[in-house]
Order: sequence, then structure tokens, then C-alpha cells
Amino acid sequence: MDGLASGGTGDIGNGGDLFAAMVAIGRRARYAARKLALASTAEKDAALRAMAARMRASAPAILAANAEDVEEARAAGQPASYLDRLSLDAARLDAIAGAVDSIAALADPVGRTLATFTRPNGLVIERVATPLGVIGVIFEARPNVAADAGALCVKAGDAAILRAGSDSLRSASAIVAAMRLGLADAGLPEDCVQIVPVRDRAAVGAMLTGLNGCIDVIVPRGGKSLVARVQEEARVPVFAHLEGLCHVFVHEKAELGMALSIVKNAKLRRTGICGAAETLLVDEACAATHLAPLVTMLLDAGCAVRGDAATQKVDPRVTPATEEDWRTEYLDAIIAVRVVPGLDGALDHIAEYSSSHTESILTQDGAVAERFLAEVDSAIVMHNASTQFADGGEFGFGAEIGIATGRMHARGPVGVEQLTSFKYRVRGSGQTRP
Amino acid sequence: MDGLASGGTGDIGNGGDLFAAMVAIGRRARYAARKLALASTAEKDAALRAMAARMRASAPAILAANAEDVEEARAAGQPASYLDRLSLDAARLDAIAGAVDSIAALADPVGRTLATFTRPNGLVIERVATPLGVIGVIFEARPNVAADAGALCVKAGDAAILRAGSDSLRSASAIVAAMRLGLADAGLPEDCVQIVPVRDRAAVGAMLTGLNGCIDVIVPRGGKSLVARVQEEARVPVFAHLEGLCHVFVHEKAELGMALSIVKNAKLRRTGICGAAETLLVDEACAATHLAPLVTMLLDAGCAVRGDAATQKVDPRVTPATEEDWRTEYLDAIIAVRVVPGLDGALDHIAEYSSSHTESILTQDGAVAERFLAEVDSAIVMHNASTQFADGGEFGFGAEIGIATGRMHARGPVGVEQLTSFKYRVRGSGQTRP
Repeated sequence: MDGLASGGTGDIGNGGDLFAAMVAIGRRARYAARKLALASTAEKDAALRAMAARMRASAPAILAANAEDVEEARAAGQPASYLDRLSLDAARLDAIAGAVDSIAALADPVGRTLATFTRPNGLVIERVATPLGVIGVIFEARPNVAADAGALCVKAGDAAILRAGSDSLRSASAIVAAMRLGLADAGLPEDCVQIVPVRDRAAVGAMLTGLNGCIDVIVPRGGKSLVARVQEEARVPVFAHLEGLCHVFVHEKAELGMALSIVKNAKLRRTGICGAAETLLVDEACAATHLAPLVTMLLDAGCAVRGDAATQKVDPRVTPATEEDWRTEYLDAIIAVRVVPGLDGALDHIAEYSSSHTESILTQDGAVAERFLAEVDSAIVMHNASTQFADGGEFGFGAEIGIATGRMHARGPVGVEQLTSFKYRVRGSGQTRP
Repeated sequence: MDGLASGGTGDIGNGGDLFAAMVAIGRRARYAARKLALASTAEKDAALRAMAARMRASAPAILAANAEDVEEARAAGQPASYLDRLSLDAARLDAIAGAVDSIAALADPVGRTLATFTRPNGLVIERVATPLGVIGVIFEARPNVAADAGALCVKAGDAAILRAGSDSLRSASAIVAAMRLGLADAGLPEDCVQIVPVRDRAAVGAMLTGLNGCIDVIVPRGGKSLVARVQEEARVPVFAHLEGLCHVFVHEKAELGMALSIVKNAKLRRTGICGAAETLLVDEACAATHLAPLVTMLLDAGCAVRGDAATQKVDPRVTPATEEDWRTEYLDAIIAVRVVPGLDGALDHIAEYSSSHTESILTQDGAVAERFLAEVDSAIVMHNASTQFADGGEFGFGAEIGIATGRMHARGPVGVEQLTSFKYRVRGSGQTRP
């Protein structure tokens, strides 16, 4: 066979050479991306609105496919929280379509003039944003990722190759089928959004090779084991964070009421997201006044506290922290607490243990805050704010495909702007180089 | 041993575990990069000026080391052009030091505010430029690359690990030794610039692994075989172009005098640089008037012409072009010439054969030029200008460490701005996320 059908019609099967079939998907994506790169803002936005409309119109088919996925996962003994992530209903599907509509309403990131300069010889050089190309998105149970990621890519002029987790393949395929109808409605290539139609895990390995140059970047959306595998094996760039081991540092000059409010929010608003705080550092200069109220607040709110010696003295409910605790992203109602010698102690601890995702300092001392903002080498550094703001939506990016902690190209929330590349346009009037 | 001395004192030797020794170099670079990232603009510029001064003061040692390199290369039978690239004299060394001084005079790319936005909740979010980290530069015979690349990295707040070609190792080591004296003069870590002190090619392989996370990006500076190996093996991002198969398209509405001037310059000003034109496309609509003068000009200027059937009819000196010619970067006084059916024919040819480096259209029709500028997917697209302007200096970047054709992070000339990353600074007043 020369290619798997990847139209999301649910034709799950495998045979012949999987890699060759994946490359055929890649080639179709590259071809579609070239067409999409030339589409106008109006054409792309019309396609996105048509995709949302087709998703709403396809609700019966999508929900039926989802019911099969959920039933199979239930029979396989998946826990309730997993089934909840996987499950769709009419309201959730409408919200997913609404998110696609709101992506249509974002500003077009393509064609922006990023810089203009005129050279002494009269050449006018512009740096302009272009689509990035073909994005491979590898995700797990949440079928809404298919819609979000596909729509963000289309907005940025990129073709998407989506690889769903086995448990959500029927749901994601039904959503992609609807999106492809919307693309066709608007006269854009259906292959702007494709889904890998097989459960074979070898398909992931194929994507990580870049499919003979047909994939420009991989975005893994899922747990740490998925991200670790992708970062280890990928031969193309990856936009991802392995973990969010986020720190809050309560400095000597922190206002206690604000510290109580922000620490509670940073740790406990939602414990399972990457921007949740995992380690609380308290300046020894304010430990006498701030440590006990903070620890008591956390314990009383149902958070387990693992502390150093000073923290253990505050409350008998505190259990000892080990070296491993400073390195652990709990993603749960557990926090590690350590008393550190001032700003430099906090900077040293963060340099040693941070995952370079998000760190926040709480202080009323502006000069200390500036040093923290300058010296902490993380994608996001904050002053007097909750680490849970580490989110593309909260940053005003409209939506994000993920958060990246690499130092290249995309760092922090990855929104539509980060899904673009750029080129230089040089306008002359006959110049030759001396 | 726990590490090779990499101070450029010329202590060439190997023993024990090369990879471990390379990782030790990487760790020193990472440590130095953390210090350098906090250096002020004034400190970095003072260091660069001190590096230039130390290079001038070390001229006797550098020229003596270079004489040894040249003698060995001559004894090994290297051709004159190679020996010329390798050779230094007082004037060349002074120019190399002058280039470092001019890098000191560039604007500091670190700390620039790239974007600022205030959220409805009062959070002020800034995107600010930061150093990229540690840059590995792998080069061949030209010892000036050590000075250029090291200075560009220091300007951008990055530590450099330099790997010289075997033939230039003594020269490059002597230059690096002088640069390290300058760094120390200015109170910055000497390890901001290191050179790999062994000729063992396994050192390159070690660098391409990223040295356990100690190298953030690799920049190969050399011939196609070096770049191909780096692109194939590197497990970290690479800023490079494999080749510059640049096209000039003479459109129907091109002004003939301008076309003659630009085509001659684009092909023949210097034939060995990546921005040199390799293929000339002529619109069939102006072939009757433009093709013969262009081909005759090229032939009379000493350029071999390999043409399609139409081009062969123009002059008996034209030899037939094969499919392979459309795919060949000659880097020599040879050009492939093809008559194409209008703008779309040129776009199709370029999409098929271009290396995505630089392409130029010559036309007086602004609408046609805009389509070309929009639709050609290359790092640099030009209108009525010579492709030989594809250069960081000509772009006003002051200097470049290379030209990249990838779509991520750095594309086109890689100057000091492209050697930076960024982070987000978020300033709050107690905000928690709802």
C-alpha cells in the first residue's frame, strides 16, 4: 500500500510497511502545508469556523465514537479520573468547538513584520513571520487535544499530523473527520489536519524520525513518560517541558497575607497542572514570623508538607523531606518546604533543582525582585504572582499547544506565534555587492 | 584525568577517557556561561576590547604557532588555496583583532524587551532576551573563525567551545589563549571561550551528543561534508546550511541592464561563497531579448554555462545541462541556465531544487515581485538585488557566525541576536489565578 488513509474515518488497520505509510502521511501534510501557507487570513479563519460548525453538526457521530472509547477503557479497568478525561458529552463538545471558534478570532501570526531595516545601499530588509511547516502532535487520552492542536496549527498556517492515544483514537478520529469537512467547506486541503489511523506504537517512532523531513517539530502532550521518550528519541525539534518543578520563594520582605494567598493558590488551585508549585522556599530572615502560618495554612487545607529540620519543628504533621523531595514534581497535594539563607540561598536551590519552567518570588523589595527576575534562568519568572498563571490563555496568547522549557525558538507557553518561523524579504533597485 | 586543559596553551595530547574529558570542558563552559549571563554590557564590551588587545599583543606567539601549522600543511601537500586560508600575517591578525573590537561596538542583544503586555488582572508580562547558553563551534582551516565565533558568543552572553580543524589547531589555540587573557583582564571567566585541545576526531562526535546537556547548539563552519555529518549526527540543535543553491529568476519585465549587472555579480563576484548564484532561470516571455545577452556576458566573463535546449541554441560554448546540474552547488565559475514558463515555472523549479537559502527575482513588475517574495520558501528572498548580499554584515548584523536554513529559531544570517534566547518576566501585586 502506498499510504494509510488518515482521514479520521476510523479505518483502523495496519499492514505492509508502516513506515512507508507514515511517510505518505507526511508527504500529504507537506503538500497541504505548502497550500495552506499561501492562504489568506480570511480563508484560514473561515476554515476554522467551518471546522467548528462541522464539529457541532457531527456531534452524534463524535459522541457515539467516544462512547465506544469510554466503554473499552472502562472494560480495561481504567480509573474514574482517566475515564473522565476521555469522556465527551454535548456540553464538552460544544466547548471544544467554541475553542476552535475563538482560535479563528485570534490575530493571524503569519505575515507579521518582525523587523524592518534599510541599509546604506538602499536595500530594504524585512523579517516576516511565515508558517513553521508540519507539526506532529502526540497526545494521550484527552480527545479535545485533537481539536485544539489542529486548529492552532491551521491558524499558524501549519499542517498537523495528530497521533492520539489508543484509548481516544475513535473519538479523536471522529473529531478530525469533522475538521476535515470544515477545511473542505472552505476550499483548503483536508490534509491540513490528519490523524494517524492505527494504534501501532511504531507510528510514534516513525514520527520521531521526522518522516524523511516531512515533520518540522514534534509537540508531545501527555505524561512525563511520553515526553521523556519523545525528548530522548526525536530527531527533530521538540516543543515540550519534561516537568514543572516550580518554586515559590517567600523573601524576608514578603507581605504575609499576600504570601498566604499566593502560596495556597500556587500549590492547591489545581495540583495536577505543570504550573503548580512543588517546593516552597522561605527566607530564614522571616522564618520566625512567616513559616508557621504558611505551613499551618497548607496542612489545614489538606496539603501534605515535607519539610527540612526547621519546618518540621513548626507542626508535628510535617514529615521529613529527603533529597529526593527537592527533585520531585508531585502533581498532588504535597509540598516540599525548605528554609534558605536569603535570596542567594533561594537562587542556589533553584539553580540546582528547578526544571526551568516557572518560579516566583514574593517580596515587597523591588531591588530583590529585580535580581530574582534577572538571575533565575527559567522560561517564566514571576514577582508577587501565583505560578499557576503559567498558561498561554493567562498570558493572553488565546490558546496554547503546550509549554516549552527548551532554550530554542519556543520557550514558555507555545501559542500561535510560536508555531511560526520567519524569512527575510529584501527589496532592491538593482544593487550589486561591491 | 578529570579534564583536558582547554586553555589554548597548545598542550595537545590525549589519554584516558576522551568523552569524560569533553564533558569536563562542557561543565566548565556551563559554569562560565552562568557567570557571563549576569555580566553587564560594559563588562562584556570591556572584555571584548581586552581580548582584541591581547590578540595584538600576542602577535609573535600567534604568528609563530601559525607558521608551524602552515609548514605542516604544506609538507602534507595541501594546495595553495588551502594554505592561503590557513595563513596569518601581521595585517590579517590585526584585521581579526579589529573584527573583535567591532563586535564590542555592536548593541548588546541581551536584555532587550521583545514584547510587553499587561493582562486584565494587572499582571505585566515582558518577554526579554537572554543568552542562549553554550555554543559549540566546529570549524576547519580558517583560524580567524576562533576569534569571530568566540567574540560573537561573548557578546551574546554565551560560552563558546571551539573545535578547530587539525591543520589550524596551533593557530586557533594561540588565538584562544590571547582571548582568555583578555577575559581574565576584564574579570570574566576564562572558560567563556575554550578550545578543544586534541586533534582526535572523536571529540567532534562527543560535542554532537551535547556533552550531557552542556552544549545548547552546534554551529558547523566548513565544507559540505562537515555540515552533513553534523546535521546527521547532532543530538542538539544545529545552526547551519548544507548548501546555498541560490537562484536568480529574470522575469519578463526585468530591465536588461540591471539583469546583466546583477546576474554577473550574483554569480561571479565571489564564486565560493554560499550566497553565489548557481542557477539562472529566464522567463520564456523575454528569452528572445534577454537570454543571449545574459549567456554571452557570462561566457565572456569566463563562466561555464550549462544550459537547457533553448540556452544551448544561444551560443556554441554552452554545454548541455543534465538533471544533476539543477541540483548542483558549483561554488565555481559554472552556472546552470534554464528557460521557464513565467513566474509559476520559476516557482515550481525553485520549489523542487532550491536549498532554501537565497533566491532573487529581477523584474520591474511590483505585483509579480510580491508574489515571488511571498511564495518562495527560502530563508532570504530578494527583489532586484544580488544574491551575494546574503550575509550578516550586509544585513547590518555587524557579524555573523553563519547562515542557517532551518525553520527553527535562527534562519538566514546568524548574528548576535540569533545567539540569544528569551524568558518571560511577570510582575504582579499579589494576583492569584481564579
